[in-house]
Amino acid sequence: MAVSRTASAGAAKARKRPVRAPARSAPPAEAVKIGDLSGFLGYSLKRAQLRIFEDFIGCVAPLQLTPAQFSVLMLVDANPGRNQTEIASTLGILRPNFVALLDELESRDLCVRIRSSNDRRSHILRLTEKGRAVLSRARKLIETRHEARLRELLGNENRDLLLTMLGKIAQEF
Amino acid sequence: MAVSRTASAGAAKARKRPVRAPARSAPPAEAVKIGDLSGFLGYSLKRAQLRIFEDFIGCVAPLQLTPAQFSVLMLVDANPGRNQTEIASTLGILRPNFVALLDELESRDLCVRIRSSNDRRSHILRLTEKGRAVLSRARKLIETRHEARLRELLGNENRDLLLTMLGKIAQEF
Repeated sequence: MAVSRTASAGAAKARKRPVRAPARSAPPAEAVKIGDLSGFLGYSLKRAQLRIFEDFIGCVAPLQLTPAQFSVLMLVDANPGRNQTEIASTLGILRPNFVALLDELESRDLCVRIRSSNDRRSHILRLTEKGRAVLSRARKLIETRHEARLRELLGNENRDLLLTMLGKIAQEF
Repeated sequence: MAVSRTASAGAAKARKRPVRAPARSAPPAEAVKIGDLSGFLGYSLKRAQLRIFEDFIGCVAPLQLTPAQFSVLMLVDANPGRNQTEIASTLGILRPNFVALLDELESRDLCVRIRSSNDRRSHILRLTEKGRAVLSRARKLIETRHEARLRELLGNENRDLLLTMLGKIAQEF
């Protein structure tokens, strides 16, 4: 996970430097050992997820979208007429977090909440024209850069197998 | 991802009930469509990670440990004499979050912070005897239940391949 400087590289570097007194509290040169922790799926999943989200955010930086915002735009687009509660519970996002997320999307004119004519307490979600355009640009960026680089790293077959296993964990575990 | 009640099951239930006026705003019976979202690795990773963390927490419920707390105990145990900053940065946990996490572990007598004799500003982390005992029980529970069930679900070979791919993403992507 972190690369340690080898002893021989350190020695080679030391030979080129003028002789001086050893530092009073030199930081230890070796990396912290991950040890058995890397054999636990939960730990490895979390590290991979953090790295993927970091890359995702960088990839859509021109559009300023988080992975959660992207998921909401995708789901609202694919499910016209569905209400706030249905979209939130499908994504597993807690109500207060979802309300804050929608406030942000609405303030940026990407999504609107429309009071349902059937149930006045419920809000139907719909993308604005700008929301659809931003989603379309985001999908293109993610598919051609972020996801394409993941395919390159893992290989097509392994990448698809990874997706299958993750789906299995989410649905059957 | 969400299970919808089938039309026939609904009809069977309706026959047993007294006739009454249709509900004013019946919720739609079909599940919200995930659609193309399930084809993005980031989304699938996050869903699988949430499910695995949920199961992990249930598995070690008698010991009241979160996945992050477990990781810290594992790393401190494997790296005696390392300081707070090194452990936090290896796990990618932000300083304020890490301080809160250590406060909790210390208040439960699982871990202690010892002022470093080399650098008075730095704190060495060490597990207490109770901390080592709790970690040992937690590992046993996770390995024999949580991880064992994941192996059963995915198959040994696929499970190991999944771990390799996740490591590759965390380190090389």
